[in-house]
Amino acid sequence: MKRLAVLTGGGDAPGLNAVIRAVVKTAGLQYQAEVLGVRDGFDGFLEPGGVFPLTLDSVRGILPRGGTILGTASRGNPFARKIVREGKTIVVDVSEDVATSIRSLNLEALIVVGGDGTLHIAEELYRKGVPTIGVPKTIDNDISGTEVTFGFDTALNVAMDALDRLHTTAEAHHRVMILELMGRDAGFITLEAGVAGGADVILIPEIPFRFESICEKVRERMERGSSFSMIAAAEGARPVGERQVYRMGGDEVYTPRLGGIGQVVAEQVGEACGIETRVTVLGHLQRGGSPTAFDRWLATRFGAAAVRLAAEGGFGRMVALQGAHIVNIALTEALAVPKRVDPHGEGVATARGLGISFGD
Amino acid sequence: MKRLAVLTGGGDAPGLNAVIRAVVKTAGLQYQAEVLGVRDGFDGFLEPGGVFPLTLDSVRGILPRGGTILGTASRGNPFARKIVREGKTIVVDVSEDVATSIRSLNLEALIVVGGDGTLHIAEELYRKGVPTIGVPKTIDNDISGTEVTFGFDTALNVAMDALDRLHTTAEAHHRVMILELMGRDAGFITLEAGVAGGADVILIPEIPFRFESICEKVRERMERGSSFSMIAAAEGARPVGERQVYRMGGDEVYTPRLGGIGQVVAEQVGEACGIETRVTVLGHLQRGGSPTAFDRWLATRFGAAAVRLAAEGGFGRMVALQGAHIVNIALTEALAVPKRVDPHGEGVATARGLGISFGD
Amino acid sequence: MKRLAVLTGGGDAPGLNAVIRAVVKTAGLQYQAEVLGVRDGFDGFLEPGGVFPLTLDSVRGILPRGGTILGTASRGNPFARKIVREGKTIVVDVSEDVATSIRSLNLEALIVVGGDGTLHIAEELYRKGVPTIGVPKTIDNDISGTEVTFGFDTALNVAMDALDRLHTTAEAHHRVMILELMGRDAGFITLEAGVAGGADVILIPEIPFRFESICEKVRERMERGSSFSMIAAAEGARPVGERQVYRMGGDEVYTPRLGGIGQVVAEQVGEACGIETRVTVLGHLQRGGSPTAFDRWLATRFGAAAVRLAAEGGFGRMVALQGAHIVNIALTEALAVPKRVDPHGEGVATARGLGISFGD
Amino acid sequence: MKRLAVLTGGGDAPGLNAVIRAVVKTAGLQYQAEVLGVRDGFDGFLEPGGVFPLTLDSVRGILPRGGTILGTASRGNPFARKIVREGKTIVVDVSEDVATSIRSLNLEALIVVGGDGTLHIAEELYRKGVPTIGVPKTIDNDISGTEVTFGFDTALNVAMDALDRLHTTAEAHHRVMILELMGRDAGFITLEAGVAGGADVILIPEIPFRFESICEKVRERMERGSSFSMIAAAEGARPVGERQVYRMGGDEVYTPRLGGIGQVVAEQVGEACGIETRVTVLGHLQRGGSPTAFDRWLATRFGAAAVRLAAEGGFGRMVALQGAHIVNIALTEALAVPKRVDPHGEGVATARGLGISFGD
Repeated sequence: MKRLAVLTGGGDAPGLNAVIRAVVKTAGLQYQAEVLGVRDGFDGFLEPGGVFPLTLDSVRGILPRGGTILGTASRGNPFARKIVREGKTIVVDVSEDVATSIRSLNLEALIVVGGDGTLHIAEELYRKGVPTIGVPKTIDNDISGTEVTFGFDTALNVAMDALDRLHTTAEAHHRVMILELMGRDAGFITLEAGVAGGADVILIPEIPFRFESICEKVRERMERGSSFSMIAAAEGARPVGERQVYRMGGDEVYTPRLGGIGQVVAEQVGEACGIETRVTVLGHLQRGGSPTAFDRWLATRFGAAAVRLAAEGGFGRMVALQGAHIVNIALTEALAVPKRVDPHGEGVATARGLGISFGD
Repeated sequence: MKRLAVLTGGGDAPGLNAVIRAVVKTAGLQYQAEVLGVRDGFDGFLEPGGVFPLTLDSVRGILPRGGTILGTASRGNPFARKIVREGKTIVVDVSEDVATSIRSLNLEALIVVGGDGTLHIAEELYRKGVPTIGVPKTIDNDISGTEVTFGFDTALNVAMDALDRLHTTAEAHHRVMILELMGRDAGFITLEAGVAGGADVILIPEIPFRFESICEKVRERMERGSSFSMIAAAEGARPVGERQVYRMGGDEVYTPRLGGIGQVVAEQVGEACGIETRVTVLGHLQRGGSPTAFDRWLATRFGAAAVRLAAEGGFGRMVALQGAHIVNIALTEALAVPKRVDPHGEGVATARGLGISFGD
Repeated sequence: MKRLAVLTGGGDAPGLNAVIRAVVKTAGLQYQAEVLGVRDGFDGFLEPGGVFPLTLDSVRGILPRGGTILGTASRGNPFARKIVREGKTIVVDVSEDVATSIRSLNLEALIVVGGDGTLHIAEELYRKGVPTIGVPKTIDNDISGTEVTFGFDTALNVAMDALDRLHTTAEAHHRVMILELMGRDAGFITLEAGVAGGADVILIPEIPFRFESICEKVRERMERGSSFSMIAAAEGARPVGERQVYRMGGDEVYTPRLGGIGQVVAEQVGEACGIETRVTVLGHLQRGGSPTAFDRWLATRFGAAAVRLAAEGGFGRMVALQGAHIVNIALTEALAVPKRVDPHGEGVATARGLGISFGD
Repeated sequence: MKRLAVLTGGGDAPGLNAVIRAVVKTAGLQYQAEVLGVRDGFDGFLEPGGVFPLTLDSVRGILPRGGTILGTASRGNPFARKIVREGKTIVVDVSEDVATSIRSLNLEALIVVGGDGTLHIAEELYRKGVPTIGVPKTIDNDISGTEVTFGFDTALNVAMDALDRLHTTAEAHHRVMILELMGRDAGFITLEAGVAGGADVILIPEIPFRFESICEKVRERMERGSSFSMIAAAEGARPVGERQVYRMGGDEVYTPRLGGIGQVVAEQVGEACGIETRVTVLGHLQRGGSPTAFDRWLATRFGAAAVRLAAEGGFGRMVALQGAHIVNIALTEALAVPKRVDPHGEGVATARGLGISFGD
């Protein structure tokens, strides 16, 4: 193996830089291979200066830093890129240009770090003959085939820390505090941070809720002498019978909506229960900052494993964590079914056993 | 001195428990005096069980905790309490009931920990003969006569930490990130956290801004190759010529508004500059959590100084920090003029010298 | 199930309180069972007031706190307790007294939270007819049958944070900084925190090292222009050919030795390489403080699972984490072989691939 | 003003990079002046490549980072440099070489960021005609004329955090925990962190202690039902009648001694009180890591003020904080008397009033 490239796509996640560093170090020191960095997702292949060498010096000091030194702000899917021509937005397929650029660079492997959307593109490029290797990235933890991926643990700790902080205010002021967390389709962050942060009510996309049910819990607590309650709500949580409140296309581009589900719950519950409510929308804070030890360790192992997989020619596959082991699975398999919280699983049952309400 | 009481009023602030602990320990160990705790501001004097003994055991382990073990959720000013009678809200003066209750408890001093509003009540009660001592509490740092008070330093670090986290996302995505911070009338948190967190634009109530001016700064940065910008905006910041966007009565009851100035800036700047913007409203997170070392140390000194001041009979006065010294000043003096950021002072000049724009 | 008890033994670990809380809440709310707390390990059964009811109120607010509300400071193994009689220390077996006390309390289950040593006692008591259930606790992560247990993740983050802090000093002063971490027999903390914190050399008990080898790495870095190096050393690491430097009997009672392996490495490497060295011994700091989200979530699941296992009569067994699942295994199986870092496994190979030296 | 230089000397402190950044930005943007960086204290003036331009790009992203991009590892005082000649160590004065180098660079000002020792050199060079400006740096807070300087607040929070962590272990295990903190001659860190972290005994260089006195406090607590005690000890604390245990020459080069005062207290108190003791030596961890908001804000103001002072020609002077104001004072004045904790001042009195023992 002489030369490979690495790119990061989709929303940023703590640990991306640790993956990049591990790829560069492992390729350089273990395989004596050169690594190119691609700027802003697949866009880098189409723009002047978009592909450049990554040396040991380029990755010095980036391990503890959030974000990605490569950028992730692509203009979207190269198989369906929106461009403006003669005043109109049209969709064009530039994937052949990307593939041509990759071939002309003599890349023996392209390591693609990204979520659902980005990995789909990697899979399609693989079918076009590009030697892609996937590294899963999802703060929401909604990719199958890997127990968890980097970024999730950092987000969890940021969310729990926010619950810890809100707790003292809730207690002092006899209020219902609502914390809106990331998770459009998967409620892992909200479930785990909610339990870890001592939430009384947890609302997740997988379990539709009723406002009345939330009020019952709040009232029950007041009767027992607890004048406050804490609600952790995933942005994608929704009332029974309603379609999902929130929906966005594209690849994990997260938008903290002002006026989202947190706000809706605050208003409805405030009115129905007759108690003061306050919302905090944690938004982007869950994506940023220095990664936790778990995320740095996992991201490093993923980066190194991706290089080893490249050296073995395991293209069209993705590195993954299963139990304590780093394995690899076909991208098609990983992307077949998204991962969701099991409403009847052990995690939810544990929370219910502790007296936590899911509003159902 | 045989017996004194302590109450906390207004919004909660990290360090309240440290004040309470210092009052109880200093009074008990140094003066052999008994301390009573008053629940939920002045309300405790009017309700059964609202006043109760605080022992060394009551305050064990509370030093590192946010919030207040006494609660602060009063139903408002005893000189103008809103009550519902025969279906109508009327305003009554119950201050004489409070004063009577205090006299009947044989209190030699009442230590009142609170902001502007709460200290005004303390001052009025003092004029009615109640032996009150003030301890200033304001996260916004808007009380005169004291250089700073507890809670501010913790809020500053929470705000700076948020800027640090948003930085990595802004950089990775080429965006303008706006962080809305506390500060309805005073911009200290936003100025200091903004500088400490590397903001490019700082918007504070004391310096009206123009949207166009913000865009210029963002564009100037893009031309220099920085594809992102960070804006720190105090909730009370407002455009030139407009009245303050946000106004709330009462005593420091902070409401993070969804759709506040952060949102307005995001929309206007996003449109005017043609760049993606994202808002985060930090809200209550600035009030909660374990106090910093500075806040615990200052709160402890304030609590101890308030007891010493009580022993010396310095009623109608407030403890304060001046330079490295704990002093005391008349409540009337402290409340005469609220403290604001000096738009022509050294702090703002330093920020401007670094190239930070105030949007003016 | 009407009544069960819970005790914590051995060194403290972040998450013990979360286990206790989950046991009390799950037993009380899901099974309507009463829970007794046992003070200071098995000692509580032999002392007046050593066993007392744990109510929902007893566990309020303990989730974010380190340590254990039950204490762990036992006087040792009830099967071999050292007592002083007539001026001499003799060893007596008081296990029958413990068993009698347990029977007289009509306990249907005894949940024992502890490490190696404590779980051995639980297993022996089970063979005497006591209905014990184990919950594994080990900061070092050296218990088999469970992928990891609570406390480890918190320790890892404390260790990584220390490496991050030392990094800046090492860089500024051109020094070799040595951080001595926990791990008498197992090097997991040092391996994972070392990789996550960017260590250049990692010394663990499973891989004997040579001082000369460490010097080579330091020199190699200096030749490449890096004037500093970071060494993470487990307290149980030892030079090739020497017996383990450090050994302690008993159940995970950790003693940060001044003059331990960190100090030895500092002196030998400092002399051999002719470069200034500094040691920091992190010691107890790795055991304390608020647990991370992962540790609170896992500890809560373990506590709840232990109660469910008790309800099913699964005595003599221990709850464990395998992949994403909570399972249970026989205590004998869990204790048969202690867990160690595999010197030829993926973790060590990844570290070596990044250029990290193990001093071998 | 066309050209100035900046150097950092002595031990590193969180905030050094914020000073450098503020100097470069303020000089460049406000005064259109060029800034040179000097590597490794005054040594940079004598070595090839030791002086190099600092641009806006050089200081991008350094605000949140600990350490110093300039390095501080000088070979010592240029007025008395130790060199080895013909196998012997001799002391030579190379200050004239430094002054010549400075003149040849056409520097209009040299900003020297350092502690006691470094500022003394700045003062002597000023008397030789070099236009020096001082910026005080001392984690111990032992420089007069400024109420505090950057780095101290970060160290305080690291020390308090350690006390918080040790607390839970002390409680769970019924032990005396000793935390040895920085402070060879001044006890500010230990006093303030000790009070903020809830220490029961505080040992500082300014108040000699007796072991028996410490035991009394520990026993008194045991009698009241507290089975553990926390001791915060400054490295320079010493028993009554003994000379200071610890002494180092040079400029703030801090060495965490294994076997220092913490260890001595642990042994003596352990024996005398018959209770288990454990020591943690925090050492370099107090110097490293990302600066707090206060330290970044103060360091930024100091850097900007130093440039303004240079523009005004205020050479031989040092920027300082007095009250809320940045002022400047003559270096001779600042260095005349070192700052110490006042044993009879308000801080110590407050601690005593809370029941804290100073072991005297």
